[in-house]
Amino acid sequence: MGSVIFGGIEGGGTKFICAVGTSPDDIRRETRIPTTTPEETLGQAVLFFNEAEKDFGRFSALGVACFGPLDPNPDSPTYGHILPTPKPGWSNANVIGTLKSAFDIPIAFDTDVNGAAFGEWTWGAAKGLDTFIYLTIGTGIGGGLMANGKLVHGLLHPEMGHIMIPHDKERDPFEGECIFHKDCFEGLASGPAMEKRWGQKAETLPHDHPAWGLEAYYVALALANYITTLSPQIIVIGGGVGEREELLSLVRKNVQIILNGYVHSPAITRGIEEYIVSPGLRGRSGMLGAIALAQTA
Amino acid sequence: MGSVIFGGIEGGGTKFICAVGTSPDDIRRETRIPTTTPEETLGQAVLFFNEAEKDFGRFSALGVACFGPLDPNPDSPTYGHILPTPKPGWSNANVIGTLKSAFDIPIAFDTDVNGAAFGEWTWGAAKGLDTFIYLTIGTGIGGGLMANGKLVHGLLHPEMGHIMIPHDKERDPFEGECIFHKDCFEGLASGPAMEKRWGQKAETLPHDHPAWGLEAYYVALALANYITTLSPQIIVIGGGVGEREELLSLVRKNVQIILNGYVHSPAITRGIEEYIVSPGLRGRSGMLGAIALAQTA
Repeated sequence: MGSVIFGGIEGGGTKFICAVGTSPDDIRRETRIPTTTPEETLGQAVLFFNEAEKDFGRFSALGVACFGPLDPNPDSPTYGHILPTPKPGWSNANVIGTLKSAFDIPIAFDTDVNGAAFGEWTWGAAKGLDTFIYLTIGTGIGGGLMANGKLVHGLLHPEMGHIMIPHDKERDPFEGECIFHKDCFEGLASGPAMEKRWGQKAETLPHDHPAWGLEAYYVALALANYITTLSPQIIVIGGGVGEREELLSLVRKNVQIILNGYVHSPAITRGIEEYIVSPGLRGRSGMLGAIALAQTA
Repeated sequence: MGSVIFGGIEGGGTKFICAVGTSPDDIRRETRIPTTTPEETLGQAVLFFNEAEKDFGRFSALGVACFGPLDPNPDSPTYGHILPTPKPGWSNANVIGTLKSAFDIPIAFDTDVNGAAFGEWTWGAAKGLDTFIYLTIGTGIGGGLMANGKLVHGLLHPEMGHIMIPHDKERDPFEGECIFHKDCFEGLASGPAMEKRWGQKAETLPHDHPAWGLEAYYVALALANYITTLSPQIIVIGGGVGEREELLSLVRKNVQIILNGYVHSPAITRGIEEYIVSPGLRGRSGMLGAIALAQTA
């Protein structure tokens, strides 16, 4: 008792995962709260952490890794808010304000994918690197970015699922399903896009289905763009679709074909199995990333 | 005499610009050397700086902003070398080694576009920012990147001219001319690509030629990708093609259309004239960037 302990929230579009602990081997309590309204969801999170403080003592800090778009700039008047979003009820929700009024402790705030990147950097596949990407491919597609040893925000924060990539409409007549951009990367390659195109859920597609060849091609086009744009030291790919092992090996081959030897690094030309990798923390990158963010707050 | 003074080299594919001075208002001597062989070109540069040292005193440092691909990692055995390149004679040229053997002073080394970005950050359009892009569109297309206040190298260095973008072959049957990727951004939108497509040099195309509408669309697709991937605070566009004023205003409109309100920042939705901008240092970003790099060596 009396030791240092942290709370973490991985805030997703369908569920909020709340956890209490200090590291991957020391998660003392964890819960999942369905994402409904901000009041209800954040209210449940506050209750969970209040109960946990009774058992484990006062937290040193909270970390929140949340779906976006959001405002991560502490100097901005809307810091800690969700920005206008198609997600009903969440536009302009004051996530950090709500938590601050319940817990008078430091609170760190970033995107879900920056949080997952930070988890992978602290305990996972990206330990010791200074410039890398964590990409998730699932219900949506998003990427967290660390450059020069710090998470990147810049103007707002990366939204790299929404890059525009070549779309050969003869090979793939599916028009794309992003409500902003139709056939951007997310519009062509998210789990819901796969489901619409093939008429069945991505997780039910067998490993020899042509869906995976097309998906690997789109993912590889996006990765080739990230590689030429950012020169990351590795790319970590998570998410329900992204972690399919048969996908990853096809993606690696396609990346080499698309880059065609242009980026002259043995990491890509010879060691691509260690360049495009699955998360070291598997499905726990985001939750553990929130705990890691708390430790910087 | 006896005051601090620096040498800078902007090493390009057709010419090396060598300069001596301390700032945009204090360039005391400057010369242009045609890019022939590494021995001849670097030998001429050494002669120029030797002469200048006689008149201005010993340099405190040199800065070199050079065409790539190159190895900018001081811990690497090939640090300071050009990497394998289609440019005859320059593969594996030891640029920094050659200069080090002539001048026993600190020498900074980076890509031409990172150098130009650093020049714009020190004295130009990007002063005080921490995350932005300097893009040049001319004989080739390349981008320098600063993130979190430092130039980005990562695995090697960005090569963002080579991203893959949508290419509607019905609208534009030109197949692209990148020797690595055919119709990547550079393959579709560099000066030489414009010349091949339209049968005349880009600088001779009148401002109402359809070339500019197509060019603006390709540039805007690339910028939209950079914006979603990196979230830069501004994008500076230089180069012979990039600095055409009629191009820039078309690019801005196209970026807003492509992003379609997704990146929710007034910088893009309202103030895009100050978000996508020409270099503050005009054609001198690279040369002055080399001087600025020298000051960090």
